[in-house]
Amino acid sequence: MADDEEMKKGLEGVLVTESELSYIDGEEGRLVYRGYDIGDLARGASYEEMLYLLWYRELPTEAILAQFREAMAADRQLEDGVLNVVRELAAQDAAPMSALRTIISTLSAHDSDAADEADPQNLVANVRKGRRVTAKLPTALAAYTRLRNGQEPVSPRADLDHAANFLYMLNGEEPNPVAAETFDMALVIHADHGLNASTFSAMVTASTLADLHSALTSAVGTLSGSLHGGANQNVMSMLREVDESDKDPTRWVEDALEEGRRVPGMGHRVYDVKDPRAVILSEKSEELGEAAGDTKWYDYSTAIEEYIAEEKGLAPNVDFYSATTYYQMGIPIDIFTPIFAVSRVGGWVAHVLEQYEDNRLIRPRARYTGPEDREFVPLGER
Amino acid sequence: MADDEEMKKGLEGVLVTESELSYIDGEEGRLVYRGYDIGDLARGASYEEMLYLLWYRELPTEAILAQFREAMAADRQLEDGVLNVVRELAAQDAAPMSALRTIISTLSAHDSDAADEADPQNLVANVRKGRRVTAKLPTALAAYTRLRNGQEPVSPRADLDHAANFLYMLNGEEPNPVAAETFDMALVIHADHGLNASTFSAMVTASTLADLHSALTSAVGTLSGSLHGGANQNVMSMLREVDESDKDPTRWVEDALEEGRRVPGMGHRVYDVKDPRAVILSEKSEELGEAAGDTKWYDYSTAIEEYIAEEKGLAPNVDFYSATTYYQMGIPIDIFTPIFAVSRVGGWVAHVLEQYEDNRLIRPRARYTGPEDREFVPLGER
Repeated sequence: MADDEEMKKGLEGVLVTESELSYIDGEEGRLVYRGYDIGDLARGASYEEMLYLLWYRELPTEAILAQFREAMAADRQLEDGVLNVVRELAAQDAAPMSALRTIISTLSAHDSDAADEADPQNLVANVRKGRRVTAKLPTALAAYTRLRNGQEPVSPRADLDHAANFLYMLNGEEPNPVAAETFDMALVIHADHGLNASTFSAMVTASTLADLHSALTSAVGTLSGSLHGGANQNVMSMLREVDESDKDPTRWVEDALEEGRRVPGMGHRVYDVKDPRAVILSEKSEELGEAAGDTKWYDYSTAIEEYIAEEKGLAPNVDFYSATTYYQMGIPIDIFTPIFAVSRVGGWVAHVLEQYEDNRLIRPRARYTGPEDREFVPLGER
Repeated sequence: MADDEEMKKGLEGVLVTESELSYIDGEEGRLVYRGYDIGDLARGASYEEMLYLLWYRELPTEAILAQFREAMAADRQLEDGVLNVVRELAAQDAAPMSALRTIISTLSAHDSDAADEADPQNLVANVRKGRRVTAKLPTALAAYTRLRNGQEPVSPRADLDHAANFLYMLNGEEPNPVAAETFDMALVIHADHGLNASTFSAMVTASTLADLHSALTSAVGTLSGSLHGGANQNVMSMLREVDESDKDPTRWVEDALEEGRRVPGMGHRVYDVKDPRAVILSEKSEELGEAAGDTKWYDYSTAIEEYIAEEKGLAPNVDFYSATTYYQMGIPIDIFTPIFAVSRVGGWVAHVLEQYEDNRLIRPRARYTGPEDREFVPLGER
């Protein structure tokens, strides 16, 4: 054992791979997918277009996009066996991320490309598998959310795009254009973000040549942790506390900080300035408030943003504004993190494809610090 | 971006944590759990004793072991909702490791300690959760294996120990003492092995403070890859080919190598000499053959071992002898890897407990090698 080697707990700063997928400039506050600025993509491209870019390296033409949309829409329906599992989980009132993890894992048993003997590195089959999982995940999440409330699932509609169809399946009615556009934008900006922990866990799993479904299942489980995917739920819980407190939001935060509480949704390990995704979503949060004739949630958020910037020098991250964006669209708070997964699955698939393309088993070392050479004493003599 | 930094693809040699669990001396061919030699543990301790050592740091006294066994035996039964999912998976004839992954994920919805709001770092609750998963996994695997063959599951028996009870549930009859002892030994020697890829994936998932079930689900998925858990199945397929070929085993291997085939179960990234686990299992493989009055599988194995040692300088690893050991016990080849999981889950739980105890988010970096600053062209103009 080389005990003099440096410990890299957390692997912070350790370069583990090359990737052509996304680039984060923390100083400038820029996020780029395959060379395109996230602002351009969010405002100019649909989730399906952006998926095509991540998986096939180029933005599609209209003709190619039409084919791709059609293929995705055709994959939306859940098999009966999968729906049975969704019903079992809803009957248990399973935690939503735990349900989503089990559902992704279940999908492999119904995937025609997922046979035991299939080559896990078959690119064409993997893109098909990834497309199916990405297409079915919103259907499963909407079904789960309705079933636990005693409502029957709503079947997907092939004429709606990915974002609008999810809101339709969730609520049983077509979303208004602002809601559909906003949700599509939210899906685009959450789809990839370098090697976050969930993406890295998908790569570790794929690196043994485990199949794509195994890798995606690992990623959902990893995203479920409070240090990763749960922050926007905490932001919304905070804003509701502010609302119920009768205090001015600035005063509320001042008091909360004095009590030693943390303000969620502020600061980010990789951004020194305001997260570019927060910039985009804060606009949408304001628009949604204006359309509803009440901008109080947006107003609370900006007041807290200003106060924290002055007092702590921290800027909001994407979670800070996705919270009110989703909430004003009527989405239940406890499925904010599953919605993150519904978007990020596109990035997970892309990173797993990269891992398979130039695979190396990911296996670091631990320094053994336990006891040495203990003498074994048989049970009867202890 | 610091593009001059060293790339650590595969993280080979990178120290990511300290661990008190197991130590591998590749030069001496030694494996140690918490200071005890694997040979002593395999021959002198049951799987339950060894679990207690991994989870509680010390070997139990007789009185404590009796309590621990009783608690584990009481956890063996599957809830109806879990059994329904097992039936769904068997009806689809899901790949066994895919089924096991889905089953572990499902268990969280039925675990009384797994509520959404539970503290993921609660040590006492995590040991209970880990014990439940470890206790139920053999029940689920035996049920799955029987159901896909059209047989009804056999309920667990609390009077049998962990190893014997699995063989009882699998076959519907009590195992003979040699089989029970051998299987128990196999469970002990597979339970931990430093930071292998599946263990590391469990740690990455746990590092976001995702719950224990998420971490174990990641680990099963990671183990399913052919670079990790599948080797003993390949060894057995090879030995059956040898048997059907009418060739002398040495000649068969000679021909196979000439055709460019790899001999599975030989060599190991961390051992320079014979894997100490292979030493133990080769003895048991011989004993099983002698008890059955036919040592041909053992004889094929030793002939191939000798040939590969001379020609390639490689020694067998644990998979090389677990193959014939399990096969001679009548275990179906395609559940060899799930059986690996049934044992290793004890080590996964122990490593996740260590991760929670001194947690740091595991998040390395990727070097971006994609295009820079591409100009976005709207869909209609492409």
